[in-house]
Order: sequence, then C-alpha cells, then structure tokens
Amino acid sequence: MLANRRELLYGMATAFAGFAMPRLGASKKAQSGLRINAARLKRRLEDLSVYGRPAGGTFADGVSRVAYSDADVAGRNYAMKAMREAGLQPRIDPAGNIFGARAGMAASAPRILFGSHIDSVPNGGNFDGDVGSMSAIEVMQTFEENHVTTKHPLEMVIWSNEENLVGSPAAAGGLDESVLSRVYNGIRMEDGLRKIGGDPTRLAEARLAPHSFCCYLELHIEQGGTLDKSKIPIGVVEGIVSIDEYEAEIRGFANHAGTTPMPDRRNALLAAAKLIEAVQDAVTREPGRQVGTVGQLQVFPNAHNVVPGLARLSIELRDLSAEKIARLGDEIQRKAQEIARETGTEVHIKKVDHDPPAMADPEIQAKIEQAAASLGLKTIRLPSGAGHDAQWMARLAPMGMIFVPSLLGISHAPKELTSWEDCANGANVLLETLLLLDGR
Amino acid sequence: MLANRRELLYGMATAFAGFAMPRLGASKKAQSGLRINAARLKRRLEDLSVYGRPAGGTFADGVSRVAYSDADVAGRNYAMKAMREAGLQPRIDPAGNIFGARAGMAASAPRILFGSHIDSVPNGGNFDGDVGSMSAIEVMQTFEENHVTTKHPLEMVIWSNEENLVGSPAAAGGLDESVLSRVYNGIRMEDGLRKIGGDPTRLAEARLAPHSFCCYLELHIEQGGTLDKSKIPIGVVEGIVSIDEYEAEIRGFANHAGTTPMPDRRNALLAAAKLIEAVQDAVTREPGRQVGTVGQLQVFPNAHNVVPGLARLSIELRDLSAEKIARLGDEIQRKAQEIARETGTEVHIKKVDHDPPAMADPEIQAKIEQAAASLGLKTIRLPSGAGHDAQWMARLAPMGMIFVPSLLGISHAPKELTSWEDCANGANVLLETLLLLDGR
Repeated sequence: MLANRRELLYGMATAFAGFAMPRLGASKKAQSGLRINAARLKRRLEDLSVYGRPAGGTFADGVSRVAYSDADVAGRNYAMKAMREAGLQPRIDPAGNIFGARAGMAASAPRILFGSHIDSVPNGGNFDGDVGSMSAIEVMQTFEENHVTTKHPLEMVIWSNEENLVGSPAAAGGLDESVLSRVYNGIRMEDGLRKIGGDPTRLAEARLAPHSFCCYLELHIEQGGTLDKSKIPIGVVEGIVSIDEYEAEIRGFANHAGTTPMPDRRNALLAAAKLIEAVQDAVTREPGRQVGTVGQLQVFPNAHNVVPGLARLSIELRDLSAEKIARLGDEIQRKAQEIARETGTEVHIKKVDHDPPAMADPEIQAKIEQAAASLGLKTIRLPSGAGHDAQWMARLAPMGMIFVPSLLGISHAPKELTSWEDCANGANVLLETLLLLDGR
Repeated sequence: MLANRRELLYGMATAFAGFAMPRLGASKKAQSGLRINAARLKRRLEDLSVYGRPAGGTFADGVSRVAYSDADVAGRNYAMKAMREAGLQPRIDPAGNIFGARAGMAASAPRILFGSHIDSVPNGGNFDGDVGSMSAIEVMQTFEENHVTTKHPLEMVIWSNEENLVGSPAAAGGLDESVLSRVYNGIRMEDGLRKIGGDPTRLAEARLAPHSFCCYLELHIEQGGTLDKSKIPIGVVEGIVSIDEYEAEIRGFANHAGTTPMPDRRNALLAAAKLIEAVQDAVTREPGRQVGTVGQLQVFPNAHNVVPGLARLSIELRDLSAEKIARLGDEIQRKAQEIARETGTEVHIKKVDHDPPAMADPEIQAKIEQAAASLGLKTIRLPSGAGHDAQWMARLAPMGMIFVPSLLGISHAPKELTSWEDCANGANVLLETLLLLDGR
C-alpha cells in the first residue's frame, strides 16, 4: 500500500473537511487535526468484551480473559482481525506477542513501538489493557484511512500474558524461563504459549535488539483514583514504581484460650496486628506517594479457642524511589523486633522480591503534555503504582505512558470503568504523541 | 461384699500397719490414713495411653482418642476392665456415660458422684480427663481393698465425648439433640453414640434427677500454667468461667495495592488489626483474671497485591463474672465503631454464644482445702478457664473441682504433662475430700 501513499510526513487527510497540515514545532498547540474514530473504538472494546464474558452477563459484568484460556485465544483472533482492518499484517513472535508494523518514509529509521495487552485477571474489567490495545489499532487505522505516512516506521504490539509479565519480559530478554514450567489457570505455561501461537523452544528469537526501536509508548487506564478524583482526563506517567516484597513469619506459642493468663501468652496474631499497624505508620508518617500493604495473612491453628501460635503475612512497599522503600523496609524491620520483644514472639522478615523503578523518559512526558494541550486536555504527572509491560521496554529504549481515568479508581474487578469519552481522549493523545515523537 | 464389712464410717484399713481411725471434725488435719496406690495409678495411665497412640510413638507422643473412634471404644473397654478390678460393675447409660456404683451404709442416702472423661482432642495429651478417670477408679479400688464403706453410696462416672460436651449435658438434660445428626471425626454423632454402647433414641433416660446425688467432684489437670508457675500442687477451683463468643465482620473495599493511595483505602485488615489490639487493651486494662482472644481471622481476597476488602474474626471473652465480660464486650463494640470511622470500614460484631459461669460450691472448696492440708499439700483457689463436665453437674447439685499442675501450662497437645507425684497427690486429695463430704 506504500506505493499509493503520498510521501509526506503526515498524509493528506482527505476524509476530513478543512484538514490543515500541521507544522510541528511551530507552536505548543500544534496538532495534526486527525481524530480517531471514537464510535469504532467503543464498538471494538464492546466486541472484544464478549471473549471471556461470564455466562449470561453483559459488558458491565466484566471479563475473565485469562492468558492461554480459550477466551484469550478468541480475543487475540478478534484483535488480529481488527489489525487487518487497520491495514496491518499481524505477526506472532515466539513469546506469543502480536506485532503489526506500518512502514515509514525512512526505511532505515528505527521503529516507534506502542501497544498494550488484552489478557485479564480472573473476574477483571473491560478496560485494563484493552483500551491501549484497541486504541493502538484505532490509531493505525486512522493513519491508514488518512493516508498518513510517518517518518519512522510504526509498530504496534499486543503483549502476551501481561498479568504474569511473560510476553514483554521475553522481548526484553528478562524472562525467567523457569516460570514456563509452572501451571497457570489449569495449563502449563509452556503449553499455553504454544496454544496462543508461541514457541517456548525459540524464546531467544523474541528478544528485541536494544536499538531496534527508538521509543515505546503505552496508553493504559490509571487503575487508581487520582485522575477521577481530580477530574483531569490525561495522566502523564513519571515512572513505574519500585516494589519491595517481604514475607514475615511470627512464631509465638499456641495455647488454650481459656486457661492461659494474658501475661503468659505468646500470641502470634497480636504481634501480627501490631506489625500491620507498624507498616501503616511507617508508610503514612512522611509525605509522599509511597504505599505499603499487608494483603495476605494466615493464622495457625486459626481456631476461636486457641491463642494463635504462628502467623505469616506479606508486606509490600511501592514508590518511585527505591531508596525510600528500602529505608521504610529497614524501619519496619526495627519496629518488628520491638514487637517481638513486647509480645514474646519471634518475628522473621525476609525480602522475597525487588522490582527496580522504571522511569519514564522526560522528553516523552513533555511530548504527551504537548499532545494533550494541543487537544485542549488537562494533564497531571503521576507515578504508576501498578506494573506494566512498559517497565520492561524501559530497559531497551526511552518509555512513556499515557493514563486515562478509572472511575473511583476501581480496577481488576468487573466494576472497572473508563468513560467512552476518556477512552477516545486517550487514543487521540496517543496519536498526537506518536506524531510528535515521529517529528523530533 | 457389704456383709463382710465392718459398718463404720470409715472401714478398717487392715492392710496398713499403724492405721488410726480418723475422727472427723476433731481437727482440720484429720485424715483417713488411706493412700491410693500411686504405682498402679501410673501403670493404668500408661496402659490407657496406648489406645489412640500415634503409630510407632511412645507415651510422650500423646494420644488421639477422639470420641467414637476405635481408640475411644478400646480405651473405654480398658477403663471398664479396670473398674471391675476395683470391684465395680460398669453400666453404660443411653448417652454413653460409664457409671460404677459402690454401695454405702445408708441405702437411702443420695450418692456422691465423681469422675471425669477419657476421650481426647486429636493430637492431645495423656492427662486431660485420664487423670481424673483413672484416679476415680483408683480411689474406688483403695476403698475396696481397705474394706471402707462410706455412709453415702459412691458413684464414679466416665463421661462420653467430653471434648464436645455430649455425655454430661445429656445427663443434665441440657443436650441440644440436633448435634447428634452432625458428623464428627468421620462419623455421625448418633451412630458414634451407638458404637460406644449408647442409644440416641433413649437419651431422656440418661437424665439424672436433681436430687439423685448430693454433690459432684472432679479431679482434672489445670490445663493452664498457674499451679506449675507457683509450684503449688493442688488447685481449688472457684468456678468454671462464663464464655461470650462473638463473630466480627469487617467490610472495606478490595483494591489494587499499587494504585490506591493510602488515604483512599478502606482496608479491612488494618481495621481488624486495630480491633485485635482493642480486645487486648480492653481485657488487660483492668486487674483480674479475665481473658480475651482473637483466635481466628480470615482475610479476603488474601493476596499480597490487593488491599483487603473483607475480614472475619472471632472474639472470645472469659471470666467467672458474666457481668464483667458483658461489659468488656460492650467496650469492644464501642471501640469497633471508632475503628470503623477511622478506617472507612463497616464493622459488625454479633454475639454467637454465651456460656454462663458454673460456680463451685464454697463448702466443697473448703473441704478440698481441708483434705489437701491433711496431706500436707498447699493449695490456691483459681478459676477454670476451660470448660468441664462439672459445669453441667453444677446445674443439678453442689460441684467441686480439684486441679493438679500442667507443666508449663501446656494442654491439648502431646507435650501435656503432669508429674506422677502430682497425679498421686490429686488422687489422694480426691479420696480425702470424698471422705470429708461423706462425713458432713
């Protein structure tokens, strides 16, 4: 189709009456005049939602499109059909990632990569990943329909198994391949990979060379409530937070709840309660956007008439600053030893995981702000508290992320909701940012 | 055998050289001079311990003689054999309780009832119940060997299924018969009852008439650490505590642990932690022997990366004063509503069970102290924090309990241990107390 295209930085948008050629750099307000088709984007999000919908449910009942499930396969086929409608030839790499490239004017220029995912958590919502993926297709189709040829080749991607971070780490050369022998959602991951068209024996071929693309861009729902609360339509991600994960084991002594006087108890659950409060105190005592969570707690023997003898709990700390959460972890460790002395228990806390932060590129952040401003959309900068495929791409190239609001901050749940207007705004900001990145 | 007995308040102890007839009431130090056979008591406790012993284990590995199990049946057969050696004719009532009566001088006098149980919790110890049961047999055999005839008829009892309080409530007319349809340890309780020689269709016949016995006495291990810590061999039970049991449900909102800022969280586990501390504070703030326990806690969805949305926990309060634990319950309720406001959660606490206290008879307590003093054994008064068959007998007649030390307060565990000397002391105090009660 290249032969029929006018070799312009931006193609003629003949379908748009009054379309004016953008002059990039001339003004912060410069914009292409191109708009994605909001109705088509909505329809595709609705169409995609049926793959993994609960029996008898509606769009509002969310989705279980768990990676490697039949619903995942069907959803991926739907996405590839839509990519073809957008003029792309979908290609599946050995890690199950779906790529679709669009040629640029300069064949030797590095690609601009952008995309998201369409797999979901069990009982998830219809926006996490889907918005970025369907918008990527929509942007490609808008370029196609408007005969836009960018300078750089464009490539969109739908990462496989984002919820377990398999596809993008494989592309970044950071996948621990031992996870492929694990059973996930009733299927061994390596078999799951084959089921979606991947090849676990050729994973090395999925690796992207560091200079094969010039930057990575991802549109995603915020999954938190900051944008919704402040009524701002576009979030500019500063980076993806660092995560420290700890496991704590508290050993007391299980004893009869009736015959053991209070001063003689070595109550593991009482110590756990104090530790949960200590995590909350450490994290909220100082200003900042750091978060800390005890999400998991198990009590033994867990009987109403036995003083608990053993408790195990998870502690998770997140912030853009790895140094800050390391310091908070040390504080919690110190406090835990005080609690141990106070309650006659032993508290052992060990770090079980550390994800470094992935900072967004400052220039891309500025371009997203410029793109949003050109569309009259307000922005704020914020960290991403959740992990994303983008954190893996940040290892290879400058990365940027665009957030759109999640109603009430709800995500990973059927009630997850982003307004159609916010979806369309996000897609248009994605389009304008791509053009700005292409022009630099 | 009555015909051969000298009709004395206390029989001639011809086997004992230098035996002197006791003159009751003449001195607080008066004692019969009778002694139980400590070696035989030890042997019977060891013999009984094999029924329910873990495969390949020793006495120190504890016992699983769960009611209605084959081990329970075998243990009961062993106990009945020992009762016959003691000159008794065992009789099983429709509730599975084993009785053994010994005639007194006055045929019309009400019986003195005493005993305990031999069923255990899973992975329990060899002293809970067994000490009181084997001692009851030992006391009967000592009377038999020494040709003692009491004024009142004596009756010993081994209650069935004490760990679920089935046998003694049936005898007290307080059994909720619907429990018999429940499956316990792999057998429906009514079938279990048949298996041990009871008859669930004739339970009414197991009821003891209120004036059919003049008092009830039980020797038991303390199951707490008070006696062991203070090195006092005999505990005189003031009463069996009242128990209030509550279930608390805390409703917050499950949300992403990375994307939900700290001030926006409605963390059910944080609220639960504060409630656990509130229970501890309420119970320990004032002097007294009241205890309060959160033994059970469940967290939902219980994932390390999700802010907990729901928590359920048990709260149990125990004290001799039902009024005191009712007041503590009210305090905890008030504090829970403060916690709910502070954490943005809803806390619902409902009372699910109330056991009234069962007070020991003051005169019997004095008699136990007199009996122990006559043997040169120190005593202290203390509440029983655990439930016992005695609490049901207290509904029908004056009740008393004798406690012997539990090493380190450990019970309901293989490590449960009472020294052989303490067992023998307990049995001798039981014997002397029976004689004092008979003489009043």
